[in-house]
Amino acid sequence: MTEFRPALYIVGFLLLALGAAMLVPAVVDFAVDDIDWHLFGTSAMITGFTGGCLMFSMRGGGDERLSLRTAFLLTVLSWAAVSAFAALPFLLSNLNLSTADAVFEAVSGITTTGSTVLSGLDHMHLGILVWRSLLQWIGGLGIIVMAIALLPILRIGGMQLFHTESSDRSEKPFPRLRQVAGAFVLLYAVLTLTCAVALWLAGMGPFDAINHAMTTLSTGGFSTHDASIGAYSSRAIESVILVFMILGAITFTLHLRAVRGDFIVYFRDSQVRWFVAVLSAASLTVAIWITLTHNVPFLTALPDAAFNIVSVVTTTGFANADYMLWGAHAVAVFYFLTFVGGCTGSTSGGMKIFRFQVIYAVARQHLMRLIAPHRVAIARVQGSIIEESVALSVLGFFFFYALTFAVISILLSLFGLDPLTALSGAASAIGNVGPGLGPLIGPSGNFSSLPDGAKWVLAAGMLLGRLEFVTVFALLTHAFWRD
Amino acid sequence: MTEFRPALYIVGFLLLALGAAMLVPAVVDFAVDDIDWHLFGTSAMITGFTGGCLMFSMRGGGDERLSLRTAFLLTVLSWAAVSAFAALPFLLSNLNLSTADAVFEAVSGITTTGSTVLSGLDHMHLGILVWRSLLQWIGGLGIIVMAIALLPILRIGGMQLFHTESSDRSEKPFPRLRQVAGAFVLLYAVLTLTCAVALWLAGMGPFDAINHAMTTLSTGGFSTHDASIGAYSSRAIESVILVFMILGAITFTLHLRAVRGDFIVYFRDSQVRWFVAVLSAASLTVAIWITLTHNVPFLTALPDAAFNIVSVVTTTGFANADYMLWGAHAVAVFYFLTFVGGCTGSTSGGMKIFRFQVIYAVARQHLMRLIAPHRVAIARVQGSIIEESVALSVLGFFFFYALTFAVISILLSLFGLDPLTALSGAASAIGNVGPGLGPLIGPSGNFSSLPDGAKWVLAAGMLLGRLEFVTVFALLTHAFWRD
Repeated sequence: MTEFRPALYIVGFLLLALGAAMLVPAVVDFAVDDIDWHLFGTSAMITGFTGGCLMFSMRGGGDERLSLRTAFLLTVLSWAAVSAFAALPFLLSNLNLSTADAVFEAVSGITTTGSTVLSGLDHMHLGILVWRSLLQWIGGLGIIVMAIALLPILRIGGMQLFHTESSDRSEKPFPRLRQVAGAFVLLYAVLTLTCAVALWLAGMGPFDAINHAMTTLSTGGFSTHDASIGAYSSRAIESVILVFMILGAITFTLHLRAVRGDFIVYFRDSQVRWFVAVLSAASLTVAIWITLTHNVPFLTALPDAAFNIVSVVTTTGFANADYMLWGAHAVAVFYFLTFVGGCTGSTSGGMKIFRFQVIYAVARQHLMRLIAPHRVAIARVQGSIIEESVALSVLGFFFFYALTFAVISILLSLFGLDPLTALSGAASAIGNVGPGLGPLIGPSGNFSSLPDGAKWVLAAGMLLGRLEFVTVFALLTHAFWRD
Repeated sequence: MTEFRPALYIVGFLLLALGAAMLVPAVVDFAVDDIDWHLFGTSAMITGFTGGCLMFSMRGGGDERLSLRTAFLLTVLSWAAVSAFAALPFLLSNLNLSTADAVFEAVSGITTTGSTVLSGLDHMHLGILVWRSLLQWIGGLGIIVMAIALLPILRIGGMQLFHTESSDRSEKPFPRLRQVAGAFVLLYAVLTLTCAVALWLAGMGPFDAINHAMTTLSTGGFSTHDASIGAYSSRAIESVILVFMILGAITFTLHLRAVRGDFIVYFRDSQVRWFVAVLSAASLTVAIWITLTHNVPFLTALPDAAFNIVSVVTTTGFANADYMLWGAHAVAVFYFLTFVGGCTGSTSGGMKIFRFQVIYAVARQHLMRLIAPHRVAIARVQGSIIEESVALSVLGFFFFYALTFAVISILLSLFGLDPLTALSGAASAIGNVGPGLGPLIGPSGNFSSLPDGAKWVLAAGMLLGRLEFVTVFALLTHAFWRD
């Protein structure tokens, strides 16, 4: 048990920070004379007090070394604890939400998924809107820090390729986390602020601009309007959001290097090149399809297609049109794009471009070896040879992804969801995308109409996806708890 | 070019054999005084003549050694050529079939898929019915021989695990093919005859019994009735077919050993154990679901569920009920089962149980290594260690499977097929299953209503699936044709 002290200490710290974050919507509601500030105050007290107690009882834990098992436990426990306490304001609010609703909304926020059970956003208390945006912003920051500081040590799904000095386990966990996080918090905050200013210049009100900037950079997708970005009907706003969704889905270490003057870094990175290629190819295909079948000029179809495709592939989930109306081909393309995801070490979810690069390189090598067994065929990604352990990690990752997808789809079908809703809902949840397909949970739908059981299943799927499956499954093995 | 002589010689031989096979429906039609015997006679002449010419011009090719490249070419070319000529009787018939229809039906037959564009089967010319059954029977035999004699040499998708002495490339191809095939033709014929007799004893007429025996052992699924096995409403007939579908989907080398007295061989084989476990678990789940939601007694629901689930997992595709009416959960289960498939070295299609065993073992090993890096974790299947090359072959296979599935789904959507039809149609074609989901191509549907373009795409998918993708993709690489 003492082995887990550092994990519990950090969870305590995260809850204390979450409690502090709850003061932001409290202040907003207080400023506009909304009685809702009470519920954020109460939530902040409960959360902060719990966190403080945990830190106090585990004091000194931050200076202890993190065992491998503890790192696994920390990863899962921190996201679970933060999700649970983040649901408090939704639960205490007068929005008439069930526990399933409140947890669903909180998990959807913190995992930057962006599926919502709330409607009437346009006339919602401001505090609730701020809390939703803030949750996604915090969740986005959390996943970047986790991807850079924790996952490479844990060697999850081939992430050992991104092992850098800053992610060395021999250091003390708490100072390292603080140090690594520092640079990225600043970068992330500056990018968010830039996005907010750009949105404001493009014609958005300041409140909306700040909220959308937070949910864009985090590739989250919560909006302050039921019609999402469609509420503005502004190409300028859509363009700004499109650019910052892409930035949010690109490896943040690249941004750090670009900020230091090395702008060419994006073009040298093959993951970014693949990512842009996928976005361009899908946008062009769907735009041509719309042009041919819906009698819309190509130059109108292209920005519409691009916005929604970038939104799904970056796993943001904003919509400016109901692409369910674009016909069979568009729906099929969106279905498969739900699985893709952005670059590693970004705020996006999904399988991630990097893993497609690995599996493609391995499959290509396999083919070459079949044809010419005596010729040397080497699988490379980004110029470096793919080690066996990385290839097998990626194979393991795809297995757990496919397994979770199938199990969640089948569980959803048990609640009577039709196949398209069940399949796309499962894919959207584990990829942290947001919208699914079909009239219920599609771009113009809302998750509130689903049965509570389905909401629990989807929330579990979002957490599993955000934690890259393996961390959770590791905790479920007998071997993890042995000795 | 001379390198390819043995391949062309064998293709010539196969066409000659196909021409001979066409005499069977010719004799049947002649016996019942049906003028249709002409079209089979004409087809037999064209096919046999082409085959004979090819053999003559490549004479001596059968005694030459097969280079690796030639083995790839042989695999693809033989299935393509047989498919093309097998379509002749459909094309020449008075059934009013387009070229797409004729090729679709022939490919669906020879790949033992079992999707059909024909209706009015109950009143069809007997020759056509015999030809459809015979095609599946020949196709089933072809895939067994290929899986045992060719794929292990080609090391396709982890099949090198099944490399035996009888599959050594250093031998001359033609004598070996004859020798390997010999034992299996006899076994296959005896099993088919047993199935036919059992069906006859269960109450089927002799003509139907022989036809269904041929399409059951080959896990093909063509029937002589539009209502498929539902036309008989007989539990006895369904039970016989259920047993022989399972036998058809089990590795045939096991049958060979069982025939020699080693009956315990089935229980020792972990692939068979997994296969039976999947069938049992799915049947029970769906039966319980039907019982709870449709107010049907469990003992009525179980045989219905079992029959249709065994039919889909063995990739046969018979139906005795429209399981689209069983509700959301059943449909979702059937969707995922479309991918599974039977055992390697059988007549079934799909991903195959063995590959799930490999990916599961590798994923489990990955998880164990993450938790306890210093403990030794070894991935085994059937007691033997999975070599890196096998694991990476399987990874490559899954990549090509997923890629083909996505591309075919998206192509189908271009012809306006709704998502469920496109996704399940693609999965059904590349898995050589037969029926898809939805009103169009579901268990009570028919593929005739699809546009011709979609039929071409599906036929290509069936061949790709039957040839395990990699053989075809190998031919499309630059490296294959170099030097």
